[in-house]
Amino acid sequence: MAVEMEIICVGNELLIGKTLNTNALWMAKRSTSLGVMVKRITVVGDEIGEISAVVTEALKRKPQFVVTTGGLGPTFDDKTLEGIAKALRKEVEVNDKALRMIREKYEALAKEGRLEKVELTPPRVKMARLPKEAKPLNNPVGTAPAVLVEMDRTVLIALPGVPSEMEAIFEESVVPLLRKESGNVTFFEASVFADEIMESALAPLIDRTMHDNEYVYIKSHPKGEENMPHIELHFSMTSKDGKSAKDKLGKAIMQLSELIERNGGKIRVQKKN
Amino acid sequence: MAVEMEIICVGNELLIGKTLNTNALWMAKRSTSLGVMVKRITVVGDEIGEISAVVTEALKRKPQFVVTTGGLGPTFDDKTLEGIAKALRKEVEVNDKALRMIREKYEALAKEGRLEKVELTPPRVKMARLPKEAKPLNNPVGTAPAVLVEMDRTVLIALPGVPSEMEAIFEESVVPLLRKESGNVTFFEASVFADEIMESALAPLIDRTMHDNEYVYIKSHPKGEENMPHIELHFSMTSKDGKSAKDKLGKAIMQLSELIERNGGKIRVQKKN
Repeated sequence: MAVEMEIICVGNELLIGKTLNTNALWMAKRSTSLGVMVKRITVVGDEIGEISAVVTEALKRKPQFVVTTGGLGPTFDDKTLEGIAKALRKEVEVNDKALRMIREKYEALAKEGRLEKVELTPPRVKMARLPKEAKPLNNPVGTAPAVLVEMDRTVLIALPGVPSEMEAIFEESVVPLLRKESGNVTFFEASVFADEIMESALAPLIDRTMHDNEYVYIKSHPKGEENMPHIELHFSMTSKDGKSAKDKLGKAIMQLSELIERNGGKIRVQKKN
Repeated sequence: MAVEMEIICVGNELLIGKTLNTNALWMAKRSTSLGVMVKRITVVGDEIGEISAVVTEALKRKPQFVVTTGGLGPTFDDKTLEGIAKALRKEVEVNDKALRMIREKYEALAKEGRLEKVELTPPRVKMARLPKEAKPLNNPVGTAPAVLVEMDRTVLIALPGVPSEMEAIFEESVVPLLRKESGNVTFFEASVFADEIMESALAPLIDRTMHDNEYVYIKSHPKGEENMPHIELHFSMTSKDGKSAKDKLGKAIMQLSELIERNGGKIRVQKKN
């Protein structure tokens, strides 16, 4: 059974179409590369009730991991931890370790002369207010600690929304957890491109190739239009055995390419410009 | 009450981090510009059960609009309509009007000499298999018709995943429906950038400005890091009255800029390179 993950992205900027969701792309790609199956990505706004509802629903589906991004900072609209606390029916309280982490960040800044005095103002203390029994995770790049809550079935991790911070914490604290769960599984993929054949004519050829090549998943992505077809054929599989996976992908690519050329299509290795 | 929408994006390519979700960005931006409030964006894979579950959950929240993208094409992994049918507990059946639309597309291609003969193969007929009582919507760019299902509380619309097709159908068939519901409401926004002040120091200044400027929403987006702060301040509001909205945004921008400069920060009108 594959290790399953859900991603929750918090932020009005995503819902008003101001910000492209590159965080979801990055996390999905990185997790997939480690053999983890991302089952769902949900974007919600900066509202405690909404965040709480989405977290509750995700936990009900019992994936091994739920990872959120966004809403951990010092401003009024950073509400992710309150939303998580509500979903878990826990209080939020100042976490001593988190507060120490935050104080150290500001002390370091003061030392570098970038801050006059280290003052733990309410917005700074806010970043240390975690759901009870949650653990803070080191943020190697920014100030707000990430947060981990371990439950019976699921590990819930809250990461900041600033991409450099999210990525650094993910690499340092999340990747080791994913590796531990998924073992040495890796995701393998390859693409070829088909011209001069319509997607509707490709459909039965893909069906046949998938039928003959167990474990290999093939998906067609039209890049032109149905009437000027240029179609990416994306082959993928998850395996512990790299050599065998590459052989299997290669065999499927060969078979489908032959079928396509026999049906009047052309195969390219690279995307048409 | 704002008109509410949920967006559902269907496609494994989004869950494996292969494709950046530009469709969600485009739809969210376009809908927001018409005064529609996008409440949630959900990404799921190409599985009937998953699609059905997500659609069922969205309909339960009773937004006026649920719009899906992806999964309408001719291949085996295009499963959106089956997922929607399952959610609505309806059968899928060949829709005569949809089939006529598809036949006309292929006849036009044959006329242009790009197709030898017009043959309604099973993958092509598949694109006309809609949930019972659904209506096909014209696709001005590609072959697969979009689909509309009208319910008591919600209009459900399924669009293709190819961006040019999704956008063309959205403009032609969805925008008029949104306009009709939301009236002449428009979304107004503006940004300024703050330097040399940390987000944690900004927090109380934003609170005060929002308190003094009803209807204006202000969100801070850190672009640097907390220790080298460069922060976008995004001001937005939704209104029927453009002149008054711009005045209100301008007043809030002035107030917050003054507060920031009084606290040692610098304001720029443009993003730092």
